Amino acid sequence: MAKFITIGERISVTAPAIRRAFEERDPEPIITRCEQQLKAGANYIDVNIGPAESDGEDRMIWAVKLLQERFDNVPLALDTSNMKAIEAGIQVYNREKGKPIVNSADAGDRFNRIELAANNDAIVIALCSANGIASDNDERMAHCQRMLEEGLMHGMEAEDLWFDPLFLVVKGMQDKQMEVLEAIKMFSDMGLNSTGGLSNNSNGMPKHIRPIFDSCMLAMAMMQGLTSAIVNPNDQRLMETIKTCDIIKNNNLYADSYLEI
Amino acid sequence: MAKFITIGERISVTAPAIRRAFEERDPEPIITRCEQQLKAGANYIDVNIGPAESDGEDRMIWAVKLLQERFDNVPLALDTSNMKAIEAGIQVYNREKGKPIVNSADAGDRFNRIELAANNDAIVIALCSANGIASDNDERMAHCQRMLEEGLMHGMEAEDLWFDPLFLVVKGMQDKQMEVLEAIKMFSDMGLNSTGGLSNNSNGMPKHIRPIFDSCMLAMAMMQGLTSAIVNPNDQRLMETIKTCDIIKNNNLYADSYLEI
Repeated sequence: MAKFITIGERISVTAPAIRRAFEERDPEPIITRCEQQLKAGANYIDVNIGPAESDGEDRMIWAVKLLQERFDNVPLALDTSNMKAIEAGIQVYNREKGKPIVNSADAGDRFNRIELAANNDAIVIALCSANGIASDNDERMAHCQRMLEEGLMHGMEAEDLWFDPLFLVVKGMQDKQMEVLEAIKMFSDMGLNSTGGLSNNSNGMPKHIRPIFDSCMLAMAMMQGLTSAIVNPNDQRLMETIKTCDIIKNNNLYADSYLEI
Repeated sequence: MAKFITIGERISVTAPAIRRAFEERDPEPIITRCEQQLKAGANYIDVNIGPAESDGEDRMIWAVKLLQERFDNVPLALDTSNMKAIEAGIQVYNREKGKPIVNSADAGDRFNRIELAANNDAIVIALCSANGIASDNDERMAHCQRMLEEGLMHGMEAEDLWFDPLFLVVKGMQDKQMEVLEAIKMFSDMGLNSTGGLSNNSNGMPKHIRPIFDSCMLAMAMMQGLTSAIVNPNDQRLMETIKTCDIIKNNNLYADSYLEI
């Protein structure tokens, strides 16, 4: 089995310092956060430039070049609702360390991102919801099936569709957590790759609880067969959890130093 | 769903201070460790008096009375290979807070502990091994089935047999971990209760790693349906993990203060 893949989430316009950096094309805050995440063991770096309707293409090209030139062609997830910006980013993307990830398609308004990924030989995160949260796993799996077929029809390998069950906030949707975890098991039983924005589940919780909560959710999701997640790699407890579950799943050989590797 | 049940493991002759306390009938160290474990949220307290061949009955009676009188009839797991000592302990045991647990039966030399539990209306930990570790889950489940039938034949409720897959040490048996976790899922799918000595898995690891490792293993085991475990309740990370997984499984209602409750 392959080791779990982490996608670092910290280069995002939702952080005011990063928003400003994108607007002003100031490399420093973006480089710093990328370095921090890579040092902590992130495999991919997500680049969330926001909708960026006016200057999305230029913004994504700038970011892809900046990060790949500085960090030895680090593999990236291109995160925006702006399709042209994703395509522009892929044009300048170097694949030496891994295909680009399109973040994200869904079974609703963003369905055509699957074809975009297929046309550009990219990985795509396929969110199993249409316009609104899936009401149950029958609906989640119908979305999954439809996106899988779309990808295959356009020539993708199944392994390049990473299905996202959509982690749901515990505060308000506590009774839905096991259903999301069951969906991950269904993806895994079908031999599919999976991912998700893990920290959704602990949204609104006190700050000291979130690393505890995220770690437990991740260990349970890895038991169910989750193959990657979009996370904060600078959350030490979370990274310890990922490394340990990889040992338990025999994805990586145990050594007393495994947490430091 | 019921909340996860923790059995505190710290009153054990494997600790030199406790061995001495049992030999000298010195209540202080035993009371202190019981208090520490209850404060940390342990549901049951394990009382491991060792084989105690010469004075087992007297020793167990002394310990049961000592702890139940001091701690409001705290429920106990009576842990010894000495059958007469277990029976003697049960004679003076007060059931107000829960049945006594017989720790433990197996499918080998200790098979007759199931009948002992049945005759005394006790819970029994049923270790799914005979004389040696089960070689695979076919063997584990054959042991499980045989012990279940023995219990039912002697009038037990199925819920009073807590099946133990036997957690195996990662250092040396890394490739067996997922099999143990699959066995837990099989117990759960059959509607059976389960338990186990969790810390076996991290035996021989550096001290700072063990709480991390035990926590991950427990979260994965709770995902598989484990209903209780024999643990060190004074391992804070582990107890945080149990409480959090109980929230994710909807066994307990989320509140921002849930870790302190």
